[in-house]
Amino acid sequence: MTTTPSPPPSIPSSHALALDAFTTLLPPSSLCTAPAALRARSHTPWSPAAPAATPWAILYPSSTADVSAILQICSKYSIPVTGYAGGTSLGGALAASRQGVCVDFARMDRVLEVGVEDMDVRVQPGVGWVEMNALLKEGEGKGLFFPVDPAPGARVGGMIAMSCSGTNAYRYGTMKAWVLSLTVVLADGTVVRTGGRSRKSVAGYDLKSLVIGSEGTLGLVTEAVLRLAKVPENVHVVIAVFESIGAAVQAALGIVREGIGEAVEFVDANGMRATNKAMPGVVWEEKPTLFLKFAGKGEIAVQETEIAKKLCYQNDCKEFRVSGDEKQVEAWWAARKALARNLLSMKNDPTDLFLSADAAVPVSKFAQFVEETEEEMRGAGFFCGQMGHIGDGNVHTAVVCAEKDRGEAEILLNKVRRRALRLEGTITGEHGVGLELRDLLVEEVGESGIHVLRMIKKALDPKGLLNVDKVVTWEC
Amino acid sequence: MTTTPSPPPSIPSSHALALDAFTTLLPPSSLCTAPAALRARSHTPWSPAAPAATPWAILYPSSTADVSAILQICSKYSIPVTGYAGGTSLGGALAASRQGVCVDFARMDRVLEVGVEDMDVRVQPGVGWVEMNALLKEGEGKGLFFPVDPAPGARVGGMIAMSCSGTNAYRYGTMKAWVLSLTVVLADGTVVRTGGRSRKSVAGYDLKSLVIGSEGTLGLVTEAVLRLAKVPENVHVVIAVFESIGAAVQAALGIVREGIGEAVEFVDANGMRATNKAMPGVVWEEKPTLFLKFAGKGEIAVQETEIAKKLCYQNDCKEFRVSGDEKQVEAWWAARKALARNLLSMKNDPTDLFLSADAAVPVSKFAQFVEETEEEMRGAGFFCGQMGHIGDGNVHTAVVCAEKDRGEAEILLNKVRRRALRLEGTITGEHGVGLELRDLLVEEVGESGIHVLRMIKKALDPKGLLNVDKVVTWEC
Repeated sequence: MTTTPSPPPSIPSSHALALDAFTTLLPPSSLCTAPAALRARSHTPWSPAAPAATPWAILYPSSTADVSAILQICSKYSIPVTGYAGGTSLGGALAASRQGVCVDFARMDRVLEVGVEDMDVRVQPGVGWVEMNALLKEGEGKGLFFPVDPAPGARVGGMIAMSCSGTNAYRYGTMKAWVLSLTVVLADGTVVRTGGRSRKSVAGYDLKSLVIGSEGTLGLVTEAVLRLAKVPENVHVVIAVFESIGAAVQAALGIVREGIGEAVEFVDANGMRATNKAMPGVVWEEKPTLFLKFAGKGEIAVQETEIAKKLCYQNDCKEFRVSGDEKQVEAWWAARKALARNLLSMKNDPTDLFLSADAAVPVSKFAQFVEETEEEMRGAGFFCGQMGHIGDGNVHTAVVCAEKDRGEAEILLNKVRRRALRLEGTITGEHGVGLELRDLLVEEVGESGIHVLRMIKKALDPKGLLNVDKVVTWEC
Repeated sequence: MTTTPSPPPSIPSSHALALDAFTTLLPPSSLCTAPAALRARSHTPWSPAAPAATPWAILYPSSTADVSAILQICSKYSIPVTGYAGGTSLGGALAASRQGVCVDFARMDRVLEVGVEDMDVRVQPGVGWVEMNALLKEGEGKGLFFPVDPAPGARVGGMIAMSCSGTNAYRYGTMKAWVLSLTVVLADGTVVRTGGRSRKSVAGYDLKSLVIGSEGTLGLVTEAVLRLAKVPENVHVVIAVFESIGAAVQAALGIVREGIGEAVEFVDANGMRATNKAMPGVVWEEKPTLFLKFAGKGEIAVQETEIAKKLCYQNDCKEFRVSGDEKQVEAWWAARKALARNLLSMKNDPTDLFLSADAAVPVSKFAQFVEETEEEMRGAGFFCGQMGHIGDGNVHTAVVCAEKDRGEAEILLNKVRRRALRLEGTITGEHGVGLELRDLLVEEVGESGIHVLRMIKKALDPKGLLNVDKVVTWEC
């Protein structure tokens, strides 16, 4: 599907010179060339669409200065660079397409400072959001949390690169809303800090938002100041089961229009089937299901669950379960959060592929969108499921299929994405462009949009070294 | 303060050719060269720092196609271009610095489509936010509103250019959070649409956020899809009067830390004095005052005002008045919203200047920040006041002085801005860079930051025609 054009001027003879320079810069333990590790930085279960290129070295910086020095060397010898944090991104955004080196942020994984009064935190890119929240809970940040919740293994650097979101985006917004400022190293090693710690700033163009979601193509983030939110009180989770997708969606849209709730999530029958297969113990009804979260001071959470209950039963809800018990809440929500991983259990063979679309549409079009997809899916000879963030109009269409069915599956998923565009939506609500959607992006932003993206890329990375081939092609 | 470097290649002889082309393109009523009108597009009471350049023509486009054709002509003949919408921006962002033409969006002032189900609205850049909200209230958009509330005369095009905010930003966020997508015309006339109508998208770099706040230097916005919010229920306004700035700030920070309220605003004694002078009828105590807004379903608003009352009285509040009466609420809040205009009434002479700083700091530093400013202000021989959005850590330091005191006032205001930087804040929380802060911006983003801004500017506007000299100098 994705054609990789002629490589940039990464002359193999310069590799030896660059390697010498890296060896001088970093201690031996910060440089790895083991084949299995190299391959694992580019090939993940989530990115089967990636081409077969692998980096020839992994570098583990310990500081912004290290990253700056690494990129100066890469710039000097024209070495392509990919960044790596949690490795959970989809669609080939993290995969090296022209070898080069991988900058892995595993050693830059510290929470540097918690600002309790200002409700912010200064962190390195290698820290995971799950670990950060655990640390806040145990320390001085008790009562505060970072609300952006992508895949559980995701780390801050990748979350920024991909401008991630998750189930909490309905209530809290996406990554962009929770980053106060960034320290970024540009392709030539220049270090830029995008701002301070004030909640608002309009001092110059919004470099922060340009870097967030640029998928490592414009710079590598080496430090971030993030906002924190108050941990919600009285969290209640609702599981509501429906006979049809249409009914579940209608109930969910009623909740969205009331403007209530912390999260409004939808999983279809096949998604629930994957959950049953991967997480034995609890047996879920294999029917269209809403996962809802409510919270608030005093009686708010209970009042909102009552509103939701009414809306669900007005839409032929088959079963409505609610819990405010902490353990139950965690267990139920964990089932939703583990869904992406659970879908992998639907592989019949380890070589099977996991492919997905991530389209989003205006919420008024959500029902039409998922019903038409459901219609098209029927008859496909492989596993398909729909699940996602109705509150944001964002749905994941997941396919697990044999390698031989890849072509058919990709046609199906592109139909889904193109339908989203016809409904004034987007081909990617939260997973990003990477390699997989790069060639389809023109249908969303037009030739003029692609031209602007490429102009920005070439202005900030004139040699085309940072995660080149992603988002837009380097060559026109 | 601001030096305007050598002009771009805007050859006067090309003006005649361009004027011919504009005359062919537009009807006679869409082209104006009346001196008073030309001067009014560049010189406003809010931007006394602007240099004396005036455009030589005002063009009134009626469509995106008109704007594209205008910019193609400007590009061909190297004519500098400034955009104009409401004319309320500060610091010279709207003022022509190298003559050329002004593109005035007065004829593109329509609300094109209200999406009630999706809570969005498609508008042209010439519509004002006050007019848009009035229209929503009377029509199908009843119950919805656009929450970003800068100066009452501001229009959407300028609000986007300046990435504005206002009193509601504490609760709702700034302009960036409320724009779904933009239609933008680039310097060479290319039309780019940044996305569709879905609430989330990560399809390519965030051009939308790059354009928002770029002060008309990267493109002219010709259409916007904006999100709408539900009109808050049971709005209550509180006026709380304190003996000292420190006490008022402490009370406000308590409210911010509780995470309650729709708006948390502070006005010092001099600000209240300006209100008394400009709005006779109501007599306000001329002491540090908080303007607070609360709202919510059921008892929430009343409960929150009770929490606020307690926090205020814990901080030596002298008087605490609360009202939920619609007319009273409107009248009290209007006093806060009219403050910028009221400050102009402190001029002793029409030639007096209105100058201001717009720094923001982390909220934990707010008290120190305003108290040190207060200390410095004492002894200045002209009117100084502090007022602003404590909830966001953003404060306006306003000066009204005679032209002869300009130098002294600017030294004072730069001290304020530099103090904000030392406290990890920003030189501009919501008003933007324009000409006035351009040369100070380097102290916030560093040489490397300025370099990146200039690279982006040069990539998107290689001839340096769009509102050139603003944000960064064109020449290195």
